[in-house]
Amino acid sequence: MMFEAAEVGRKVSKQAFKEQEPGLHTQLLEVQRALRGSNTPVIVIVSGVEGAGKGAVVNRLHAWLDARGMRTATFWEESDEEQDRPRFWRFWRALPPRGTIGVLFGSWYTRPIIDHVFEHIDEAAFDRELARIATFERMLSDDGALIVKFWFHLSKDVQRKRLKRDLKEGHKSLSTSIVKKFTKHYDTFAAVSERAIRETDTGQCPWHIIESADARYRDLTAGATLLNAIRGRLATQSSDTTSKPPNLELCAPQTPDATITILDHVDLSAALDADEYEHRLEQAQKRLGGLCWSARRKRRNVVAVFEGWDAAGKGGAIRRVTAAMDARLYRVISIAAPTDEEKAQHYLWRFWRQIPRAGYVTIYDRSWYGRVLVERVEGFTHPHDWMRGYREINEFEEELTDHGVVLLKFWIHMSGDEQLRRFEERGVTPWKQHKITDEDWRNRERWDDYNQAVNDMVTRTSTEFAPWTLVAGNDKKSARVQIAETFCERLASALADDG
Amino acid sequence: MMFEAAEVGRKVSKQAFKEQEPGLHTQLLEVQRALRGSNTPVIVIVSGVEGAGKGAVVNRLHAWLDARGMRTATFWEESDEEQDRPRFWRFWRALPPRGTIGVLFGSWYTRPIIDHVFEHIDEAAFDRELARIATFERMLSDDGALIVKFWFHLSKDVQRKRLKRDLKEGHKSLSTSIVKKFTKHYDTFAAVSERAIRETDTGQCPWHIIESADARYRDLTAGATLLNAIRGRLATQSSDTTSKPPNLELCAPQTPDATITILDHVDLSAALDADEYEHRLEQAQKRLGGLCWSARRKRRNVVAVFEGWDAAGKGGAIRRVTAAMDARLYRVISIAAPTDEEKAQHYLWRFWRQIPRAGYVTIYDRSWYGRVLVERVEGFTHPHDWMRGYREINEFEEELTDHGVVLLKFWIHMSGDEQLRRFEERGVTPWKQHKITDEDWRNRERWDDYNQAVNDMVTRTSTEFAPWTLVAGNDKKSARVQIAETFCERLASALADDG
Repeated sequence: MMFEAAEVGRKVSKQAFKEQEPGLHTQLLEVQRALRGSNTPVIVIVSGVEGAGKGAVVNRLHAWLDARGMRTATFWEESDEEQDRPRFWRFWRALPPRGTIGVLFGSWYTRPIIDHVFEHIDEAAFDRELARIATFERMLSDDGALIVKFWFHLSKDVQRKRLKRDLKEGHKSLSTSIVKKFTKHYDTFAAVSERAIRETDTGQCPWHIIESADARYRDLTAGATLLNAIRGRLATQSSDTTSKPPNLELCAPQTPDATITILDHVDLSAALDADEYEHRLEQAQKRLGGLCWSARRKRRNVVAVFEGWDAAGKGGAIRRVTAAMDARLYRVISIAAPTDEEKAQHYLWRFWRQIPRAGYVTIYDRSWYGRVLVERVEGFTHPHDWMRGYREINEFEEELTDHGVVLLKFWIHMSGDEQLRRFEERGVTPWKQHKITDEDWRNRERWDDYNQAVNDMVTRTSTEFAPWTLVAGNDKKSARVQIAETFCERLASALADDG
Repeated sequence: MMFEAAEVGRKVSKQAFKEQEPGLHTQLLEVQRALRGSNTPVIVIVSGVEGAGKGAVVNRLHAWLDARGMRTATFWEESDEEQDRPRFWRFWRALPPRGTIGVLFGSWYTRPIIDHVFEHIDEAAFDRELARIATFERMLSDDGALIVKFWFHLSKDVQRKRLKRDLKEGHKSLSTSIVKKFTKHYDTFAAVSERAIRETDTGQCPWHIIESADARYRDLTAGATLLNAIRGRLATQSSDTTSKPPNLELCAPQTPDATITILDHVDLSAALDADEYEHRLEQAQKRLGGLCWSARRKRRNVVAVFEGWDAAGKGGAIRRVTAAMDARLYRVISIAAPTDEEKAQHYLWRFWRQIPRAGYVTIYDRSWYGRVLVERVEGFTHPHDWMRGYREINEFEEELTDHGVVLLKFWIHMSGDEQLRRFEERGVTPWKQHKITDEDWRNRERWDDYNQAVNDMVTRTSTEFAPWTLVAGNDKKSARVQIAETFCERLASALADDG
């Protein structure tokens, strides 16, 4: 899912590129000048899949920036000089001095990822490498470095085509066997990379995943994101080196083509007629009721998180799910504003306290994801804090699933038009009027911000142990069936794994 | 070595305790009142060896503090309620709200340590647990929590006596077999605990190791350290939650008995007559010369760090060592102030750049330890930064030794009187006058501060992969022989491990 968000077809037209590029170029030069007088070294990590055009990006950055304040280091084969020294020596050599930009083409990530893909190191060793990398980056960052990490992504399909084209055009470094090798290992490589990115995606040094099928989008986004990161750092520069907010935002050009998100790929045309709806829902409910008792017997907890747009139908979907369950086995928790007691603790505390004993189903109507949705969009929380949220949530969910909790997460998506229709309907239907408030209308104005926040949330917290399910919510019936059936499948497969 | 610094015999007289206790009590109550209005929860972790009187400390803290703003949680056997939930649930339950103090008697450290001591989990799993703990603590700390971690230590011998006494006095929880078990596993327990402490001894959440043979010293030090930590936090409280300096200092009462350091245990009476000196030095040098060639053949690097008081005889000792080596194999690096180019990088950068290819000996006359010695004592570096130094240095040295570097570290100790004698001698000996400067006299005034800094350095950076050797330096001959012989032994044993 992390990478799916970079397979949505983002692109920038020739025209838009022509319009934006000169401004970006000028601003990059300006910010580079300002950087020169500062105490900050900027470390740009360029990584990603083969064929994504990492070399082209680096060349573009060189065209945009002043060569006197930047240096690019490549890490191909280790020299014998390097092999004779501890592994990080080659990276220390390449670190930029304060006030300059160092582009690392390949980096400390390359070897652990490759080694794990080809099974030269096992998972425990890989995790240890990642922990070491995180420590290393934190050390540099604590010392004042700004680390901007780019991952350039291509889908499997696009990669194959790209490599074949490059091969035809006679790229020196390619051969048919190399192309085959990349294609063959694509999935493993993606899974390993995803883990590497997630484990090192800290608030202090976040990753930026950039879709690279379109070169113009790729380059403009990388350039603007770098610009924004340096600018943000310089703006908050203070003598206190620990108080610098990182900058998480991916700065895509603000054109429709370049701001497509993973939500735009949800097929909202799905719809069910009444008969099919009732039949399938009934089937799923029957199955779900039994599965919940099996979970109880196996002492497995189930946690289901429901998030979605206002009026997307969370409540209705939850009722259809709970209708299938024995009332003694489940509990629905509606998350509203925290109590005073909860405010006096870490924001995750109130979710920890709700964790039931083994064998129960807990359903959250809104959840801990408020941290990176409403708290982010409405500015209730300092960026420092919500940016750390993704990783904290991943850790939290890993704790749960390590303990055997089956964790389901639903985002009920819908179109803006459909939301408007429902809002208006609520406005005129007396018994639905209480469901619509001024706040709902205000939230609606922030649709784009929420859209971005949801995209980031799904990208950064869809893990192999707790993936998101994006639900097509324009048709309520279809949404409810999708949820009930997904619930069954995930639960059944988790229980089957127990043997 | 980490624990040896807590086996030096620190104690507080009845008289001194009586004098200090009322003031400490009053100040703790004051600071607790001030804490109440703040955003900071204080988490006090009470851990350590069996018999160290952890329960007594907790009771003392309860006597000193206002019960309305504190709560103690004990983590004995997991309840069935707790077993049914993810492992950290019991700790989340016990976290104190902002403005209050939570004393955790036993903590998230207990189980991983016990599990690893009794080999229920292997080293990789143990490391993973420690990484998770570090992440957890960082999360709480990022959120504004002040985490004060105490480790109460007893030497093996004192523990055995203590447990036997407790047994005789009829402590309910003790039996002869339990006492035997603790004594039997003491060394393993110490080694595992040391690793746990080192891996989680971050600048943000540092450990305090408190010698616990004397109850008065133990309690006063714990109380004063807690007081100091809370006070430090409240003083720097700002809206920016990330900019709070941790507080590393152990606040022992300032009496001679309570401020004994590991250096006071170096036997400075060691001395050699000229004959024995020449004979043993010659033997060691011969052996060392051969060992360096073996290291060369085996492509092992040797790094030797020399630190010590001014006029302790580092230069002379280094010359005796290098006299044994082929000039093509070694290099002596004198660390002075960093160059402009070096200042523009992380402080470790200048040491990384000096790392030789495989098969060489590098001798550092002063080293990266300047970070936690002169930079700390003279205030050249912000406490934020040098406090991170210990862990950064440990990581650095682990990188080196992981790569096969044999790392030796010598601190040449001497008495203040002997230093004075040498300074005065230098002052009147024409050809030695250049060796003594005003700065040396100034440093001398800071003897106690340096003493404390050296104690912390040796405690926090003496690792199983790179232990410190404390050299008795009052007699130069004896010091040189000790160094040359230690050099041989460490190098020989490292090369022997290679087979």
